[in-house]
Amino acid sequence: MDDARDVPVDEFKHAGVRALDWIASYLSDPDRFPVLPPIEPGAVKAALPESAPDNAEPLDQILDDYERVVVPGITHWNHPSFFAYFGITGSAPGILGELLSSALNVNAMLWQTAPAATELEAVALDWLRQLLGLPAGFAGVIMDTASVSTLCAVAAARHALSELEIRERGMSGRDDLPLLRLYTSEQAHSSVEKAALVLGLGQRGVRKIPTDNAFRMDAAALEAAIDEDASAGYRPFCVVATVGTTSTTSIDPVPEIARICERRDLWLHVDAAYAGSAAIVPEYRHLLAGCDAAHSIVVNPHKWLFTPIDCSALYTRDAATLTGAFSLVPEYLRTSVDGEPTNYMDWGVSLGRRFRGLKLWMVLRAFGAEGIRKRLANHIEMAQRFAAWVDEDPGFERLAPTPLSVVCFRARPPELSSDATADGAAADARLNEFNEKLLQRLNASGEVYLSHTRLNGKYALRLAIGNVRTTEAHVTRAWELIRTTASAVLDQWQT
Amino acid sequence: MDDARDVPVDEFKHAGVRALDWIASYLSDPDRFPVLPPIEPGAVKAALPESAPDNAEPLDQILDDYERVVVPGITHWNHPSFFAYFGITGSAPGILGELLSSALNVNAMLWQTAPAATELEAVALDWLRQLLGLPAGFAGVIMDTASVSTLCAVAAARHALSELEIRERGMSGRDDLPLLRLYTSEQAHSSVEKAALVLGLGQRGVRKIPTDNAFRMDAAALEAAIDEDASAGYRPFCVVATVGTTSTTSIDPVPEIARICERRDLWLHVDAAYAGSAAIVPEYRHLLAGCDAAHSIVVNPHKWLFTPIDCSALYTRDAATLTGAFSLVPEYLRTSVDGEPTNYMDWGVSLGRRFRGLKLWMVLRAFGAEGIRKRLANHIEMAQRFAAWVDEDPGFERLAPTPLSVVCFRARPPELSSDATADGAAADARLNEFNEKLLQRLNASGEVYLSHTRLNGKYALRLAIGNVRTTEAHVTRAWELIRTTASAVLDQWQT
Repeated sequence: MDDARDVPVDEFKHAGVRALDWIASYLSDPDRFPVLPPIEPGAVKAALPESAPDNAEPLDQILDDYERVVVPGITHWNHPSFFAYFGITGSAPGILGELLSSALNVNAMLWQTAPAATELEAVALDWLRQLLGLPAGFAGVIMDTASVSTLCAVAAARHALSELEIRERGMSGRDDLPLLRLYTSEQAHSSVEKAALVLGLGQRGVRKIPTDNAFRMDAAALEAAIDEDASAGYRPFCVVATVGTTSTTSIDPVPEIARICERRDLWLHVDAAYAGSAAIVPEYRHLLAGCDAAHSIVVNPHKWLFTPIDCSALYTRDAATLTGAFSLVPEYLRTSVDGEPTNYMDWGVSLGRRFRGLKLWMVLRAFGAEGIRKRLANHIEMAQRFAAWVDEDPGFERLAPTPLSVVCFRARPPELSSDATADGAAADARLNEFNEKLLQRLNASGEVYLSHTRLNGKYALRLAIGNVRTTEAHVTRAWELIRTTASAVLDQWQT
Repeated sequence: MDDARDVPVDEFKHAGVRALDWIASYLSDPDRFPVLPPIEPGAVKAALPESAPDNAEPLDQILDDYERVVVPGITHWNHPSFFAYFGITGSAPGILGELLSSALNVNAMLWQTAPAATELEAVALDWLRQLLGLPAGFAGVIMDTASVSTLCAVAAARHALSELEIRERGMSGRDDLPLLRLYTSEQAHSSVEKAALVLGLGQRGVRKIPTDNAFRMDAAALEAAIDEDASAGYRPFCVVATVGTTSTTSIDPVPEIARICERRDLWLHVDAAYAGSAAIVPEYRHLLAGCDAAHSIVVNPHKWLFTPIDCSALYTRDAATLTGAFSLVPEYLRTSVDGEPTNYMDWGVSLGRRFRGLKLWMVLRAFGAEGIRKRLANHIEMAQRFAAWVDEDPGFERLAPTPLSVVCFRARPPELSSDATADGAAADARLNEFNEKLLQRLNASGEVYLSHTRLNGKYALRLAIGNVRTTEAHVTRAWELIRTTASAVLDQWQT
């Protein structure tokens, strides 16, 4: 029964070579598409049939539609002028890693179901741990995203409150459970609050600590909040510090926070999803200072380590508590070699686990430690240069320090801000409107894609560098475009 | 600065063709490796350096090591004689989909960051919805695994208890929260209980309902349990029914369960991760009877729909409640087109989302509805034939009905079970030991890989069919091997 088999191998090979050629041309001419596509919601859907075809279609025809319908609707995260959110890279070795993983199609839930995937995941994570300068006591596991890594870490923190028996008794229908509180800064990523929602801690279970003028968690305020809550009968149990916040890449004072957590026996989780990778560069090794005292830390190779989405590395020095929170082994998942080797299904929510270690291993080898350092340092250098341009231009201002590769700034045309000293709020409102227009116009150009944030009420543009195909020419061009577009918006504004 | 860029495109292309050739040969000669590799824990790790290399290594060298170190440690889920757990397929179109996704490397968190990925995901899921015969009111989202889909569904069920304000107030530090209870059968997948652990419902928050002699949830017992709990002041809020349980692929009586949920206003989630796909075959359309009344349902294309891991489709007819449980939109994630199109980050835990819709779309097109039906029907046919062989052989017995493509059975050599009527328990203990040995010996052969479960105290072998490269010859050979191995184990046993 031939139509019970896969697509013929010859057709696969032919289509595979076509796909590879497309990718090679995509990677070698990465500017060829607008970074943000000029399409309206619904356009892609409208170009596709309403139902699946009854009969098999040739791979060539599907690839035709890929080029005709899909590509024109892509926001190109792999474009060198993608400066939004965090710059990321789907690198050549990472792409090949995904290709091979999907062909093997192993499920790395148990050692027995995936010996090489399990061990390669552990090995690649240990290589990365060494590069990051984390102590040997940290063991790793790959999750899809930092959202899930942080969820799992906070679940472990909750499980560490063993006397509360939450795994067995749950949190509802009890009057003996104090309010559990988690602390994180006002600048922390929304995934921290989302983890609290999922875990049943609620928004009330998250206390957001103010930050200093550089958007770093105020450790004294943290300590006071914990003490206040403890006095009120609440149960502080976890602090999530951030190394590289999403808005400004600010670095919380982890050594101080770690001391506070140690004194009060709280679980410290560090969200270093973006900035952790920078610790691979000797000059930035200090970024992870204090993290050796953390209970868990997440670093995302799919952010600033050239690995295709998704790949989030969660490290913990208390794997027993993490697996204690999650492990459930029904009969059908027992094997004759359990106990000795790692069964990663016990480390988190998902039973099914893709072979993500392969692409990470390939990226680490294909670039090498030195190559990674050079690339990261180059991104930081380019961002610092951009920050200097902003500082030197009287029509612009930076809105936050630039410790790494993300610059937060705004246009501040003298024409719109001359009365700023008289009425700061009114000037800010005007500047916010102006910068929002500026961002829309920039992104509509298709030449660059930036995102934004809001800092102390000020609408800030964010230029984030993290793609290995981004060169100084791209950054220079972005700056030129930003300046000319700001002038154009100003002209319109004044008429 | 050349070493700040990606691996040169020529090298990528050369290595890409080599990887494609390897995959083509892998797919065309899928029996060439032992399905379960003959290696000891630690062997892969021992073959690898202890640290990442300092300098970049050529892709060719990495591929050498892939073949030398990784492949010999692979459990081949893509092998036609992989009969363990559930048979799955990394199909040619799915592999190409992953290849292209990883090159685009988009993050489908927001419509604006991934218009085509967002819309293609919705379109592919709507095509699949139609194939499954679910009503148009069901909207879908792709998660990594059914574990996460079920977690999100139960989170939505909890959020539907809006008067309890769990999102805002959480579940701890309250004395006004009744014990929340979730109901599922004793045969349900461990991911249901895991979801309860994560959500803070605890093991006490899960009540496992007994099953009938065909391992289906006893609806009368469910109703009685709900009433009993309600009388005790607990708050029943969710039922998770299973269409295709993991041990035996039994089908819970969803129409009856749906009526119970409707009467009591409980959220009904259906775990059809494996068996849902079979509803694409007209003769098996009835499998999803009653599911139109469910609030959510999960079907995994990475299980029995030829899509590489990971791809789990979660459908709900109450997307507002699902997003209500999860949505958090900080300033840096606002865009000018929010509200109108779907922002999938609001539908679950993970903010970062791989472009998984592409591979599903390619699989649906490359096989077509008819092609999918034929393949699924073929798997069921082969399993039914195997079940008949078991039934006809006096040395074997089936331990559960075989509604689909998984056969649960055991060897029952007359020599070991002659006194079964006199002392069933003693005979079962002997047979359990015998079948465990049999499984170990079979799997050590490298020719087949089966898994096991335990049914009413009996150790059962599971033969699961679901790979498109599995032919009748593979199933015939498996049966021959099972019989001869059982004879060999018996010979040893008796000496």
